[in-house]
Amino acid sequence: MSGPVPSRPGTVVAVDVGGSGLRLQTYAVRPGPVLTAPGVRVGAAGIDVAALVADARSLLVTGAVAGGGATEGAEGAGGDDRVDGSPCSTTRPEVVVWSMRGLLFLADRAEVLRTVAEGLGARRTVVVSDAVAGLVGATGHIGPGAVVAAGTGAVAFGTDFDRQWRRVDGWGHVLGDAGSAAALGMAGLRAALRAHDGLPDGSTALLSAAVDLLGPPDLWPRLVMTTADAPERLAGVAPLVTAAAGTDPVAAALCERAGTDLADSLLRAADGLDHPRLAATGGLLAAAPVAEALDRRLALAGARRSPARGTALDGALHLARQLRDTGAIPEHPAYLLVS
Amino acid sequence: MSGPVPSRPGTVVAVDVGGSGLRLQTYAVRPGPVLTAPGVRVGAAGIDVAALVADARSLLVTGAVAGGGATEGAEGAGGDDRVDGSPCSTTRPEVVVWSMRGLLFLADRAEVLRTVAEGLGARRTVVVSDAVAGLVGATGHIGPGAVVAAGTGAVAFGTDFDRQWRRVDGWGHVLGDAGSAAALGMAGLRAALRAHDGLPDGSTALLSAAVDLLGPPDLWPRLVMTTADAPERLAGVAPLVTAAAGTDPVAAALCERAGTDLADSLLRAADGLDHPRLAATGGLLAAAPVAEALDRRLALAGARRSPARGTALDGALHLARQLRDTGAIPEHPAYLLVS
Repeated sequence: MSGPVPSRPGTVVAVDVGGSGLRLQTYAVRPGPVLTAPGVRVGAAGIDVAALVADARSLLVTGAVAGGGATEGAEGAGGDDRVDGSPCSTTRPEVVVWSMRGLLFLADRAEVLRTVAEGLGARRTVVVSDAVAGLVGATGHIGPGAVVAAGTGAVAFGTDFDRQWRRVDGWGHVLGDAGSAAALGMAGLRAALRAHDGLPDGSTALLSAAVDLLGPPDLWPRLVMTTADAPERLAGVAPLVTAAAGTDPVAAALCERAGTDLADSLLRAADGLDHPRLAATGGLLAAAPVAEALDRRLALAGARRSPARGTALDGALHLARQLRDTGAIPEHPAYLLVS
Repeated sequence: MSGPVPSRPGTVVAVDVGGSGLRLQTYAVRPGPVLTAPGVRVGAAGIDVAALVADARSLLVTGAVAGGGATEGAEGAGGDDRVDGSPCSTTRPEVVVWSMRGLLFLADRAEVLRTVAEGLGARRTVVVSDAVAGLVGATGHIGPGAVVAAGTGAVAFGTDFDRQWRRVDGWGHVLGDAGSAAALGMAGLRAALRAHDGLPDGSTALLSAAVDLLGPPDLWPRLVMTTADAPERLAGVAPLVTAAAGTDPVAAALCERAGTDLADSLLRAADGLDHPRLAATGGLLAAAPVAEALDRRLALAGARRSPARGTALDGALHLARQLRDTGAIPEHPAYLLVS
C-alpha cells in the first residue's frame, strides 16, 4: 500500500459495507485510519443506502457517527503517518469506491450509484459488489483471478474484468453455501442428532460437544429452523466440528467435505480464466482440516492458491487508486458501476 | 372397526390435533362421522390447548364450531349407521383419547391432561402423542410395532407399549427429517442450483422444473431461508424430484436416498422389539421411487412393512375402545398419560 507517491495526489475514499459494519478508509499519499460505523440496515424497502451514505459522510467530515463510530487504527501506516480522516471538510474526494454486500440483489443499482455520488460528492464514484472488492483485495490486482470466501456463508467469484464475471454459490445454508461455517455447523448438528437417535453416520463426540454448547437436542430445532440469526447460530457450531476432526472420523469427513466444496466453487469460478490468481478468505480457513482439504483438492486439479493479501476494503482502495491514477477501471452493469 | 357389540356400550371420543386441523370422532356401537375444526393455534405461551378443547367440546355438543366446523363423513360406516355427533348434550363420554402433535415438546403434559379432562368431562381421559396414535392407527394393534411418517417432515416411532418407546428423527429439515418431502425438495433445489452454478452433481432437469415452479433462482433463498412456511415450500418441490426420477439420474439418486433414510429410521425405531409390525405413512410414500427404495432397504435388513391400516384418529379411537372395553391401556409419562 505504500509504493511511490502517486502522480495525482487527490484524496480517494474506499467504503466497504458488510454484515458486520461499514468500514471507510481514505488515501492521499498514504492510507488513513480505518473508520467504522454500524453496518447494513434493512428496512421495509430493503437496504437503506441513503442512511449508510449519511454515515459515511459523517465519518468523512467528523471522523465519527453519532453513537457508532470508531477508529480501528491505520493499516500499513504508523501513527505519525496518519492523515486527517476528514477530507470532505477541506477537499472534495477525487474518487469514492463503494463496496457493498447484497448489491447484486438490489433491483436498482444505478440508483445506488446516484445516491453515493450525490451524498459523498466525489469527482468519480464507483459502486462495486463486495465480491469484486474482495477479489481485488485478496489477489492484490485488477486482473484474472478468483476467490472463495468461507465465512458464515460461502461464495466464490471469478473474473478477468472483461468477458467473464462469475459468481458460484452464496445461496444460503438451506440451499447451498457449501463449505461455509453455517453448512459445516449444520452438518455437525445433523451428525450429532444421528448419534442421539442411534442412526448410521452419527458422531457421539459431536453430540456431547453440541449439548455442552446448545443444551439438550430438543431445544435445537427452534434455534435454527426459522430464526433470522440461524446462519450465525449454525456457524457457531463449526468450531466444534473442526476441533473434533483430529480424533473423530465423522467430524474429519465433514471438514474434508467442506474444504473440497470450497475448492470446487473456487475452481468453477476460475474456470476459463487465463492464468488466474486464486485465493481463499474467511474465518473457516483458519481451521487446518478445512484449509488442507481445500489445498488437496486444488492440487488434484493442478492449481494452487496464494495467501490472501487483503480485505474487501483494501480491494476498494486499490480500485479507487487505479481510477485516480489511470483515469479508468473496468465496468460491469451488475458488479462494477462507474460514474 | 365393526366387530361384536361391546359389552359396555358407553360413548368414547377420539380427537386428533395436527397441523392441518382438529379431527374428532365418537364411537358408541358404531363409529360416528368425523367432525373437523381448525388445528393447532400457537400463541405466545405455546399451543393453546384450552381453545382446542373448547373447539372439541363445541363439536361434541353442536356438531360444529363457529366458522370452522365441517363433517368429513363417517369412516367405515354407512349413512344409516351414523350416531348422533353430540353425546355431551345427552350423555357423559365414557372415554376421551386426545392425540396431539407436539405433545412431547410441551413442558407440562399433566396440565394438558387436566385441561382435556375438565373440558370434555369423560370418566377416563387419555392424552397421547400423535406418534403413538399414528402407530396404533397404522399397525391396527396396541402391541410391538414401528411406523415412519413421511409427510412434510419425517419421524419414526417404535414401541412395545412396555419398556421401549423410541422416537427417531423429526428434527425438522435443517437438522434432519431425513426422507421427508421437505428434505427431498431441499435436496432437489440444491441440485438445481449446482447445475445453475456449473458445479458437480447438479441437475439441469430439476433446475428447469424448479424455475417453472418458483421463478428465477435469485428469488429462492428468501422463500426458504427463514420464513415460517419454509418446510411447506420445500415440500412443494418434492413432486418435481419424484416426477423427474424416471429420467434424471440425480433425481433418482435423491429419491433412493429418501427411501433409504426412511427405512433406516423405521428400522432403528423397531430395533429391539419382538416381532414388530412395521408400517409407513405419509404423502411421500405415494411416490414409487421413494416407496420402492424404502422397501428395498427393508428387504436387505430382512424386514417388510404392511400397508398402513388407518390414521392417528383411527389409532386414538382404537385406544379409546380398548380402555372402555378392558378398563386399562398402557401408560407412559411422556407419550401416553391416563387419568
